[in-house]
Amino acid sequence: MKGLWLENNQLQLRTDIPIPEPPPGEALVRVLRAGICNTDLELIKGYYPYTGIIGHEFVGVVEAGADNLINQRVVGEINAACGYCRFCRRGQPTHCENRTVLGIFNRNGAFAEYLCLPIENLHPVPENVSTDAATFTEPIAAALEIQEQVKLSKDDRVLVVGDGKLGQLIAQTLALTGCELLVVGRHKDKLANLAARGIKTGLVDTVTDIYFDISVDCTGNPEGFSTARRALRPRGTLVLKSTYAGNLSLDASSLVVDEITLIGSRCGPFTPALELLATKQVNVEKLIDAHYALSEGLAAFEKAQTKGVLKVLLEMN
Amino acid sequence: MKGLWLENNQLQLRTDIPIPEPPPGEALVRVLRAGICNTDLELIKGYYPYTGIIGHEFVGVVEAGADNLINQRVVGEINAACGYCRFCRRGQPTHCENRTVLGIFNRNGAFAEYLCLPIENLHPVPENVSTDAATFTEPIAAALEIQEQVKLSKDDRVLVVGDGKLGQLIAQTLALTGCELLVVGRHKDKLANLAARGIKTGLVDTVTDIYFDISVDCTGNPEGFSTARRALRPRGTLVLKSTYAGNLSLDASSLVVDEITLIGSRCGPFTPALELLATKQVNVEKLIDAHYALSEGLAAFEKAQTKGVLKVLLEMN
Ligand SMILES: [Zn+2]
Ligand SMILES: [Zn+2]
Ligand SMILES: [Zn+2]
Ligand SMILES: [Zn+2]
Repeated sequence: MKGLWLENNQLQLRTDIPIPEPPPGEALVRVLRAGICNTDLELIKGYYPYTGIIGHEFVGVVEAGADNLINQRVVGEINAACGYCRFCRRGQPTHCENRTVLGIFNRNGAFAEYLCLPIENLHPVPENVSTDAATFTEPIAAALEIQEQVKLSKDDRVLVVGDGKLGQLIAQTLALTGCELLVVGRHKDKLANLAARGIKTGLVDTVTDIYFDISVDCTGNPEGFSTARRALRPRGTLVLKSTYAGNLSLDASSLVVDEITLIGSRCGPFTPALELLATKQVNVEKLIDAHYALSEGLAAFEKAQTKGVLKVLLEMN
Repeated sequence: MKGLWLENNQLQLRTDIPIPEPPPGEALVRVLRAGICNTDLELIKGYYPYTGIIGHEFVGVVEAGADNLINQRVVGEINAACGYCRFCRRGQPTHCENRTVLGIFNRNGAFAEYLCLPIENLHPVPENVSTDAATFTEPIAAALEIQEQVKLSKDDRVLVVGDGKLGQLIAQTLALTGCELLVVGRHKDKLANLAARGIKTGLVDTVTDIYFDISVDCTGNPEGFSTARRALRPRGTLVLKSTYAGNLSLDASSLVVDEITLIGSRCGPFTPALELLATKQVNVEKLIDAHYALSEGLAAFEKAQTKGVLKVLLEMN
C-alpha cells in the first residue's frame, strides 16, 4: 500500500508497504481522510525520534477485526494502551506506561491506505458529520482536554494566545463555556474567522497589563508563553497546549510569588468532540485550506508548512 | 531604636531609627524574637530591590494601636493589604495589588525593636507556645499553603526535595496528612531529624525512576527542580516552594506530554499553623541552631549563611 514514511528525518512516499494485519483486539481501518497537524511538522523536523508511517488525525472505514463496526466510518483515539499498567488501571490510558501512539510513537500512522488500532480506540462517526469535518475530532478532543483539567466558570476571564489550527479550535470550544474570552494572534484573517463567530479577538501586542484568570498558550514559542504568563492575575492558571522546541526559560520566582499554576495539556475525550461536530457547535470548514491526494503527500506537507496555512487534508482514495 | 537596615545590598546595624508611629488601623509591636529565613539571605544578596529594616518572622508584644491585644504576645501575617482592590475583595489579601510586605516590600520589618502591622494581621500566641517556637508560625503557615492548593489523600505518594529549614517544616506538615512521604536532601544530619519523627528519608541521588503523585521543590535550585520533576508520574503535580535565582530552564514539551501541573506556593494560613504549634504536632526546637542579640545581628547573618546551619533567631531584649 501507499504511505508517507518517515526515516532519518526524511519523509518519503512509499508504495511498497504491506497492508497491516490487525493483531487480536485491533481493527483494520481503511483510511478515507487525514489531517496534517503541527505535531507531524515537528516530527519531520526531527523533534522526536520516530521511524514509520506518520499521521494521527483520520477518518476511516473498518474492514476487519471489529465485527460490530464493519463498514462503518470511524475516528480513533491515538494512544494504544496496555490495559494493565497502573495508569491504565487508574483510568488514564492516554498516559499508559507501555503505550504506542498512532503515527507518533512505535505505531504506524494514518497517512497511508490502511492502519490498525485497538477496537476500544474507535468511535463511529455520526451520519450527519462529513468526513472532512470528522478529521478534526482528535484536535477538538485535545482542545476539550483543557476543560477536563481546569474548571471554567462564566465569570472567568480567559486568554487564548495563538490563532493557528489548534488555537482556533480551542477558542471555539472555550467560547461555548460562556467564559469571558479573548483570543490574540498575529494574523488578522485568521482572527476574523473567530470574530465572525462573535469571539472577541485582538492582535497579540494589544495584551497589556490586563489580568486574566486563565491563559492558554497555543503557540509553542517563548514569546507566546511570555504573553500568556504576563496576562495572568495572581493565582491564575496558564495552560500549555503546544509542544516547545528545546527548553523554555522562565521566571520561576514570579510563579512562586504570584502562586501561578502551569498545566500541560495533551489528548482529550473523543465523545464530546464528536457531539460538538454532530450538533454543529464547532465550525471546522473555515480551517481547511487544501485537499491533496495521498500520492501528492509530499506537496501536501510543503503546503502545510507554508506560513499562514491552516489545515491541509489528505484524501486516500 | 536599633534595627538591621538594608541599603544598596549592605546590611548595617543602625541605632538611630525612630520608633515607628502606627497609622490608623495598625498596631505598634515591640519585637521579642525574630527568625532569619532564606528570603532575608536573598534580600541581602540583592535579589530584590529593597531599602529598609528587613525581617518578617517574629513574635512581639502589642504596645499600642490595638486595644484588645495590648500586652499580648502576637505573631503577624506579613502582607499588609489595601482591603479594596479586586484581590482583597475576592478574599486573597496575600495577593493584594497594593500590598506592602513586612521587611520585604515597602514596609519596615521585624529585625528591630519595634514594628507596625495592620491589626487584622496579628494573631495572639497561645500561652503554651514558647516565644522561640512561635517565630516559626510564618514558615509553618507557608508550608501549610501547599495543602490549601493541592488536595492530598492518604494514597498520594509525595516527594519533598530539600532538607533545609523550610523543607523540614514542609515535611513535618505533609507527614500529618498521612500521605506516603519521602524527603530527600544532601545532609544526613538534617534528614536524621525527620527520620527520628518516623518520616522516610533518603539522599537526593537515591531518587531514581520512582513515580510520585506530588513533588515539592524546597531547594530553589535547578538541580532540586529537576529531581522533583523527574520523580513525577504523568499528571503529577510539582509544587515550587522556594524562589529561584535568575531564570529556570525547563523542558516544557515534557510538561505537555505528561500533563504535569506546576504550582507556585507562597504565604499560608496562620491559624492552623499556631494550632500545630499549640498541640505540639510540629517540632521546631531541632531547627534552631543559634540565638543572637539584635546588637549582634550582623554576626547572626554570618552564622545563618554558613553551610548546614538551619534557623538563627534574633533576641531583641
Ligand atoms: Zn495532531
Ligand atoms: Zn498501560
Ligand atoms: Zn521567611
Ligand atoms: Zn488590596
